[in-house]
Amino acid sequence: MHSEQMSPDMKTCVDACLSAYSMCEETINHCLQQGGEYLDPALMRTLMDCADMTRMCADMCMRMSPMSKDICVMCAQACDMAAEACMRMKNDPQMEQCGQACRACAESCRSMSGIRA
Amino acid sequence: MHSEQMSPDMKTCVDACLSAYSMCEETINHCLQQGGEYLDPALMRTLMDCADMTRMCADMCMRMSPMSKDICVMCAQACDMAAEACMRMKNDPQMEQCGQACRACAESCRSMSGIRA
Amino acid sequence: MHSEQMSPDMKTCVDACLSAYSMCEETINHCLQQGGEYLDPALMRTLMDCADMTRMCADMCMRMSPMSKDICVMCAQACDMAAEACMRMKNDPQMEQCGQACRACAESCRSMSGIRA
Amino acid sequence: MHSEQMSPDMKTCVDACLSAYSMCEETINHCLQQGGEYLDPALMRTLMDCADMTRMCADMCMRMSPMSKDICVMCAQACDMAAEACMRMKNDPQMEQCGQACRACAESCRSMSGIRA
Repeated sequence: MHSEQMSPDMKTCVDACLSAYSMCEETINHCLQQGGEYLDPALMRTLMDCADMTRMCADMCMRMSPMSKDICVMCAQACDMAAEACMRMKNDPQMEQCGQACRACAESCRSMSGIRA
Repeated sequence: MHSEQMSPDMKTCVDACLSAYSMCEETINHCLQQGGEYLDPALMRTLMDCADMTRMCADMCMRMSPMSKDICVMCAQACDMAAEACMRMKNDPQMEQCGQACRACAESCRSMSGIRA
Repeated sequence: MHSEQMSPDMKTCVDACLSAYSMCEETINHCLQQGGEYLDPALMRTLMDCADMTRMCADMCMRMSPMSKDICVMCAQACDMAAEACMRMKNDPQMEQCGQACRACAESCRSMSGIRA
Repeated sequence: MHSEQMSPDMKTCVDACLSAYSMCEETINHCLQQGGEYLDPALMRTLMDCADMTRMCADMCMRMSPMSKDICVMCAQACDMAAEACMRMKNDPQMEQCGQACRACAESCRSMSGIRA
């Protein structure tokens, strides 16, 4: 029986989601350790939202869900919010790396959702 | 310090999501045990999507995420698709119960997203 | 075809897991809002661990996984740790309720794992 | 404030978990598409268990949970079961690749749990 494969673009998107997901989980831990301004509820929520959304987006793309395109759109939003929140914390390599992973994922998700439009 | 509480409507929505989530997980198991037409990839994907989406929607509402309203809209779609897929399997109480839980969750999510519009 | 059902005890355990899971998610949000001593990394990690573990335990029990018994043992540990951490925060109804849900889940998981030994 | 870092071994373990997790999710989709003997409930459950367990193990290691070592032990078991189940399906590159990712993750988790003993 024929098995439909993920397209290379989809695979790139899944990888970007999994990178952002693991960066966000690491960064949540980093924030807990840093304390102070890092424990701003808005920052923490944004990181938790982004971790959940990127993981679910990866799952749905991997299973070729009919909702993949829609979830990519929303995942890009969650990533943009997390990237912005990370970039606001200056001079912290962990936050910067996390911001970059989220930014890259947002772009990949947007291009994915456009391609399949 | 003041702690913002979930509204009663939000709590109802979270409960509806958690009911649909656990019904979908049970129903995935039921389909694996039934075999045959129950293992249609489209049906299985729809149940997996709905389980993931309702769980994430509950999580995001419980943490009062700024994306709650958007995820409620998408969750309602996933629930509608799952409810339809379940209702197509006739004379099976598990599928019927799951369809009803998904239908109820879709309505609750839609009303939630409207209230916060 | 015959469909194996969850036993009533297993259903009770799944419900206890889902209650503890949602209480932990709510309590994580409560801690973020309260700030101060509520943002102790050890407390937050314990709540996150317990939320993850109870959800996974519920999933594995619902799908009648061969590892259900083992995960129930570990879930009981995570619940005990979360209950203790919650109980340490005095005069806070949210923490108390969460502690009770975790305690009840630990007991249910332990009795589940014993029954299936 | 000092931020405790994951050890290189821990990072290797997290990466192995995330690889196994994404291979299992892809393989679940592959099985749905292949149908027939691929939809054996025991195989599907094993893949679902392994996907859940590897993801949670990665999460708990990334947040330096006190339960990391215990979950690594259990994760190695779930990976062994999934690897065996995959290897039983002959002449299928997807199953073989998934089996190898699970085998590698099992070894990494075992060495992790030993190091921290």
